[in-house]
This record gives sequence, C-alpha cells and structure tokens, in this order.
Amino acid sequence: MELTAEVLNITAGGRRIAILGEETARLLGVHSSDRICITYCERQIIAIANVATHFPKKRIGLYEEISDNLGVKTDETVDVHLAQLPESLRHVRAKLHGERLREHDMVTIVKDVVERHLSEVEIAAFLTALNIYGLNMGENEALSRAMVATGDTLDFGEAPILDKHSIGGIPGDKTSILVVPIVAAAGFTIPKTSSRAVTSPAGTADRVETLCPVNLSIKEIKGVVEKTNGCLVWGGALDLAPADDLFIQIEYPLGIDPLLLPSIMSKKKAIGATHVVIDIPTGNGAKIKNMTQAYSLASDFVDLGMRLGLTIQCALTFGEQPIGHAVGPALEAQEALTALMGDGPADLREKAVSLAGTLFEMVGVEDGRKKGEHILNSGKAEKKLREIIEAQGGNPKIQPDEIPVGTNRAEVTANQAGRVLWISTADIAAIAKAAGAPREKGAGVILKAKLGEAVKKSGALLEICAERASKLESALELAKKLQPVVLSKKPEEQMLLDRVPENIAGDKPFMLER
Amino acid sequence: MELTAEVLNITAGGRRIAILGEETARLLGVHSSDRICITYCERQIIAIANVATHFPKKRIGLYEEISDNLGVKTDETVDVHLAQLPESLRHVRAKLHGERLREHDMVTIVKDVVERHLSEVEIAAFLTALNIYGLNMGENEALSRAMVATGDTLDFGEAPILDKHSIGGIPGDKTSILVVPIVAAAGFTIPKTSSRAVTSPAGTADRVETLCPVNLSIKEIKGVVEKTNGCLVWGGALDLAPADDLFIQIEYPLGIDPLLLPSIMSKKKAIGATHVVIDIPTGNGAKIKNMTQAYSLASDFVDLGMRLGLTIQCALTFGEQPIGHAVGPALEAQEALTALMGDGPADLREKAVSLAGTLFEMVGVEDGRKKGEHILNSGKAEKKLREIIEAQGGNPKIQPDEIPVGTNRAEVTANQAGRVLWISTADIAAIAKAAGAPREKGAGVILKAKLGEAVKKSGALLEICAERASKLESALELAKKLQPVVLSKKPEEQMLLDRVPENIAGDKPFMLER
Repeated sequence: MELTAEVLNITAGGRRIAILGEETARLLGVHSSDRICITYCERQIIAIANVATHFPKKRIGLYEEISDNLGVKTDETVDVHLAQLPESLRHVRAKLHGERLREHDMVTIVKDVVERHLSEVEIAAFLTALNIYGLNMGENEALSRAMVATGDTLDFGEAPILDKHSIGGIPGDKTSILVVPIVAAAGFTIPKTSSRAVTSPAGTADRVETLCPVNLSIKEIKGVVEKTNGCLVWGGALDLAPADDLFIQIEYPLGIDPLLLPSIMSKKKAIGATHVVIDIPTGNGAKIKNMTQAYSLASDFVDLGMRLGLTIQCALTFGEQPIGHAVGPALEAQEALTALMGDGPADLREKAVSLAGTLFEMVGVEDGRKKGEHILNSGKAEKKLREIIEAQGGNPKIQPDEIPVGTNRAEVTANQAGRVLWISTADIAAIAKAAGAPREKGAGVILKAKLGEAVKKSGALLEICAERASKLESALELAKKLQPVVLSKKPEEQMLLDRVPENIAGDKPFMLER
Repeated sequence: MELTAEVLNITAGGRRIAILGEETARLLGVHSSDRICITYCERQIIAIANVATHFPKKRIGLYEEISDNLGVKTDETVDVHLAQLPESLRHVRAKLHGERLREHDMVTIVKDVVERHLSEVEIAAFLTALNIYGLNMGENEALSRAMVATGDTLDFGEAPILDKHSIGGIPGDKTSILVVPIVAAAGFTIPKTSSRAVTSPAGTADRVETLCPVNLSIKEIKGVVEKTNGCLVWGGALDLAPADDLFIQIEYPLGIDPLLLPSIMSKKKAIGATHVVIDIPTGNGAKIKNMTQAYSLASDFVDLGMRLGLTIQCALTFGEQPIGHAVGPALEAQEALTALMGDGPADLREKAVSLAGTLFEMVGVEDGRKKGEHILNSGKAEKKLREIIEAQGGNPKIQPDEIPVGTNRAEVTANQAGRVLWISTADIAAIAKAAGAPREKGAGVILKAKLGEAVKKSGALLEICAERASKLESALELAKKLQPVVLSKKPEEQMLLDRVPENIAGDKPFMLER
C-alpha cells in the first residue's frame, strides 16, 4: 500500500520504528509490534510498527534511523506492506518455552539484535527466559561466537595476548590499573578495555579517565599498544561485540545479568586475547557469595574458554570488603598511582601481584608472583603506567595529589570502640553514589578502618568526599542510616545478621558491571 | 536541573517517554530506561528516559502524552531530576527471580501498568516470567482483582447476570451469536462483550459487525440490555480491565498467553456477571489438547470464580474441527443467522443449545438444554437476535444472503475418494486469513466436508471466498500446499502424524483471542 512519508526528524535511539494511524494499520492488516517492509526508490527496510491512536490517515511516521537509511523526505511516497515474522523471533519464542537453542538459532538472534530487527519487548523476553532457564555451555559458546562475529575484532599480532577481567561487584577495585603496567612492563601485550560504571560508583574507565583520555579509537589503541605493550581504555565506544551493549541496555532496568559468561568472553575474544585471568571476587558482599558458587562459575569460564580457543584461569579473590580504602573514580586513581609508586594499601598490591603473577605463569614464567612483585617494587610498573598515560594523551608526570578530588569532606565516626566485624560493600557503594560518584569524579568514600582493625570510640570509620556540599549532606545522612561498618568487641555481641522479609528481593544490590 | 522543553507533537502510543541527549543524561545521572521526574508549573509527571545520541544539549524531548499532561510548550523550561525506582519494579524483579507475589504487589504492578509507569521492556519481562513460572491461584486472584479495580465496571442491577466465554482457538466458532439470544429470550440478562480477531480469521465482534454496529459506549450498551436483555458488542473500546489490553499488546509479538485465567475472569467480573459458562474447546487443533489438560484448566476457572464471587461452569467441547462450515466474519454471520432461522449445521446448534442449557441449569432451570432447544426451534431466539440487532443500530430484517461475502470463489477438491480423517484447524485459519479475513469481512473458507464424511474423488473439500482476486489466488496456493483436510479410506493408510524436528515451536499456531 502506498503511504505518504512524514519524517519525524528525531531518532528512536537506534530502534527501527515507524508509526501508523489505527485505520491505516487496520487496512494494512498490521498490529502494533508487527514488522512492516518499507520500500522507497528500490531501497527496502524492515521496521517495527507502532500503531498510534491519533496519527493522520495514509501517512507513515518515520524516525531518523529509517528516513536516513531510505533517503526519503516528508510528503514523498513509500510502499508499505506487512512483513513476515523474522526467523529470529521464532527462536526467541522457542526459548520462551524453554527449548535449547542451537548455534544457528543464536546467530540469527544476535544478528537481528544488532540489525535492530528484534524489538526491545522481544529482547527483554528473551533475556528474561535466559535468566530463568539458564544457558547450557553450547548456548554460551554459540552466543559468544555470534556476538564476536557481529562486531569488530582486533589483532595485535603474535600470541600471547594477555588480558585480565573482573566479574565486578566490589567497590574500590582498581586492580587493573596496577595489573596492566606490571604485565606490560614484563614485555607482554595486554590491551585492556574497561567499562564505565552502570550501577556502581566507579568503573575502571572512569578511574583511568582522571589520569588520561580513555575514549580512543581502535587505531589509536593499536598505536598505544605498539608503543607501550598495554593500554587502559574505554571499550564502550568500540564496536566489539555490540550485541552485548544492546543486551546490557535491556538488562539494566530489569536488574538481571544472564549473559555474564558470553558477555565477558566475547569481549575478550574480540580484542584478540589468548590468555585471560578472570577475577571472581567471592564473599557476602560480592556477586558470588561463597566458594562453591565461585568454583562452579570458574569451571564454566574455563570450559567456555576452551571452546572458544582461549586459555583461562580464574582467580577467586577475597570479596568481603572494598579493595584498598578509596571508592570513587578520582580517589581510586590516586590510590592506584600511590600503590604503583611504592606505597598504598597492602591488599591492593597483593591482589595486583597475584593476578599479574597468574598471567605470567599461564604463559610459562616460573614463579610469576615473584616476577610481579619485583616489577611493582622496582618502580618499573609505575614507569610503564606513565608511558601508557602519555601514549593515551595524559600528563605522564601526574602526581596523586594533582588528581582533583572533592573538597567537601566529612568523617563518619564510631560510637563505640571495637574491631571492624564486617563492612557492607553495597552500602559503601550507595554512599559513594550519594556523594556524587561516578559522574562527579572527585566524589566518593575513603574507608578509615578495614576488617579486623581496631577503632577507638569516636575514631574515624570512613570519610566522605563530595564536589558539592548538598551531596555531602545526602551521603552523610545515608551513611548514618546504613551504618556500613559494623564494630564489635566480640562477634557474639551482634548475632542478628538480617531479618526476613524486612529486606525484599528488589532491594538487593545489583551490579551489572563486568 | 532545568531543561528546555521540545514538544515533539507526536504520541508515543500511550507510553510516557521523554528524550534526553547523551550529555544531558550524564549530567542528570540518568541512564536509558531510568525514570525521570518532570516538573512544570507545579505539575509533575514521571516519565521513562530514552537517551538519544544526537539530541540537543540541555533540552528534553516530550511526546504528546507528557506535554499534554503538563501543558508545556516548546522552549519553556521544565525541571527534571532522576526519580526513584517505582515500587512496582521491585515486585517485577522479584517475579523475575521466581518469587511469589502478594496481593499488594500485584495491585502495585497493575496500577503502574495502567498509569504507564512501567516500560514495555519491564512488562515484557514480567509476562515472560509469569509464562515460565506460572501463577498460583492467589496470584491469579490478586491479578484479576487488580485488573478490575483499575478499570470501569458495569452494574446491570438484579442478579443473576449471565455470560458466556470461550477460551478461543477454534476457527468458525460463532456460538455466541446463538447463545446470547437464546438466553435473552428466556428472560435472563446476558451482556456479552467480545473481542476482535488478533491472530485468528474472525472474532465474535468482527462477525456481529456484519449484522449491526458493535462499537457501543457503556451508556448505549445499558440501553440495549435494558430493552432486549442482551447485547453482542465489542469490548475493546470500553475501559473494562484496561491492564489486560496493555498486557495483550505485549504478549502478541511474544506469542505467549500467561494470563488466560485472570484476563477472562477480570472482564467477566467488570461486566458484573454472576454466572458464567466457560467454553473450553478440546482437541489436537485447539489450545487445550486433551481432556486431562481441559479438566485441570476447568478446575482452575471454577476455583478462581469462587474466589472472585462468580459461579462458573466449564463446558469441555469438541475441538477437533471448525464449528459449522463457515470461517470468516461475514460467512460466519450468515451461518449463525441461518441456524437461528431453523436451518444451519447441527454441531453449531448442538453446541449453542448445550451452552445455553448449562447457563439455564446454573440458575436453577430444570433440563436447561431442553429449554434452550425449545427457544431455538420455536424461532424465539431468532426474534431476539433481531431485537438486539435493531437496538444496536442494525437492520432487524436482514436475511443471510443480504450479508455481503466475497465473490471471488474457488473450490479445493479431493484427489482421491475417502472419508475425512482429520482437519487442521490451524491450516483452515491460515487459509481464511490468506483470503483476507478478518479485515476483509467477506473473505474466508467454507468447509464442504467435515470429520467422518465421505468425499468422492474430485469432490469439494472446501471453498475459498475472497473480496479480491489476488487474495483468492494466495489462499488457493496456500490450501494446496497445506492440504488441511486429510482423507483416508482406512486410518492405517496415513500413519505418519508429524515429523520432528520438521515443525519447530515457532511454527505452532498461536491464538491470543479469548
């Protein structure tokens, strides 16, 4: 049927949507959410129809994604007809009924996600079904491969290409900023891409951005890695496994994360990594609550790695409290730089050396941990980080106190003496976010006491830093309400861990960062 | 933060959506799909943010749903800030993790669905989780009540108020057009609302519309029922259980139907029915495949009815083939009218009398079936239907051959002699749709032979009617491919029922009509 185009001069956020009035839709036999095929001058595009109550007859509203693609202008004529169901939707529906999908089915789905032939409603249903039924290893492999195949890939030449990834969930985990220069200083290639915070107070890209630019093109990344062996860049603007980014957009409001394995592994495969250490923080405050869960996830990572031709080792790490003391982009960058300069918290240094050492041993180095320690302690890692900062366009001479942090500061103190019995990582993250992190980069929290440390009455438990006084106030109020650092002279003094159903499911912290 | 409004002059199909550019969103701390609170002149509205790559800074794009509500115009200033997660989303997320929801939780969700505070992505995930986990009876009850409470309700005064409903799925099921006048002619009130076809070749509203208008207001419906005891109207434009209509919009592309029970029961409760017969067509070609499934569903209906204060009886009916011979809005109206006039197919008359009789017995009539037969055979039911047609604004003298049907006709004939062994209801529906049904009301299929009937070689199996010659051609081609009527001299001659995985899940017929 011939309809008159009405270009809406607005994007639909990448979606391919066209608008039809109710009567026009009825004449076309189109229901809302049906696909329609729009033809203009021998060009053709499939769009998803939105049926609107008050839209002029015989017209079709086109968002920019469609009008640009077709090159059509308002008042020109396009031909529109009902399109067939895409094959991918059949596979999505099969998954809704619990069927296992084959490689071909996953490829079809991922292709149609990237090409925007599946609607958000359909992708949401697909992800929900995956979250409930789980994926078997064949599906994980198929999904990973399909996500790699539908995006760009990098090739840094000769193997091994090393990489490190954390499944996330622990605030203050700035370990990558140490691991990358340690590994690169040893002469190995480690092209590290990181994410920005989605639900957390800081992602590695946010942290590094206080030291140097992180939004590099693929060509620029290649230049940095050729020069320094490593990089610390934001992966979000690259087109590595773009389906994953689209999936994350839908997962975010739902608070689900069914694709942890294929999401991480597809990015690693796309960047060309051959040997990857996966950090699995384990503890009550982490995504993975206990060692049983951690071993199970680790074995899935190793298995999936083998299927994809990647050598994987998982590091199960202590995840009961933040790493180091600082939480928040700039505060963490300060702390990481301090650690590389020979000072800084022991747990951060220990974790970095362990992970770097694991990578070294994976490529045949004997006593990799010792090698990592040597590189860190000798100052070679610091020198390497400064090289990377310079190559990425930052100031290589930057000192920790030159990184701007919030000047609105207040301490939260103990109202009794005691030892730190536990620290709620979720509460620390919430307070840092209330202070303005991650978008106010100087905002965050500094822990003044960590697990097992003695605190005097009225001694400092944590310090809140904010760029704005009003945020300091909110964060302080939240800290007083949440009481994230729990002290006790003896464990017996506080036996009540939690009350059910006082805290309901939706309140559980959800961290999508990987 | 103060932003400049940009009214988009286009609706978002009822959705409450606002558009922010990437940088503005970052400054607000807003991710795509987050809720934002927009304030203008002391009016406030919660919208879901869509973050667009190329949208001007410091501006916010407002679809009509929002600009109309706030009364804001382009270039005026609005205040925007990140809103908290709605409580309903916490309950949706709990359901994604398999938790059982309480009445309060369901009320919160349904309210936010109707008020458009939940996005389509969130509703899709909710419905998918319900489809996988199922609902327990408490959840069905809570959902039914919430759906009634968030819409209009009708009150026709003194009980009993009778009603009839089919779970759908069988093409050619025009039984309501007989049951309503039979029951109304007996002096009982039966305010029947029906749906239009979504995935099928005809809904009862589509059929009746070839006899008289069906798009009546609540006031008009009351007038018709006061005058005639009954009505046969379209329920879609009424505001009875509007959440259900929104759920169906999302279920449609997904091919899932998790809310069959609360969807039907909320509509019956909203219309004020006290006694309802639910038709459950049972057979390979129906939604319910066997008697075990049918008994289980029936007992759920009865149970849910008791919880809602409705008396329910379920009629398990033969669902292996279409009802009568005609499939398609006008063809079915012809057949129903013929049956009321004393002729017409035996199975249709039998089914109508059984269902009407069941209703009679539910309100204390002895031998209700006999009463129904008498009313049908005496011509009282025909007279009553003509009263209803007149009251709804149609021609009460209409004769079957005055209902316009497609004049492009062709027969599909048997290429062997034999008896009809089975008829694929899904294929018959597909052929009728290919011929143009439901939107070309005169299009459809007439079965020339039904189960068990003898057919000669080259004898007619079915006739296709279409309004347009091109559609006749497509339907004929499809009929030749599908061969929906299978003949056999002896059952042994065709032992192969189906091949697996020749037909995959997505190809299974999906009928959302209820």
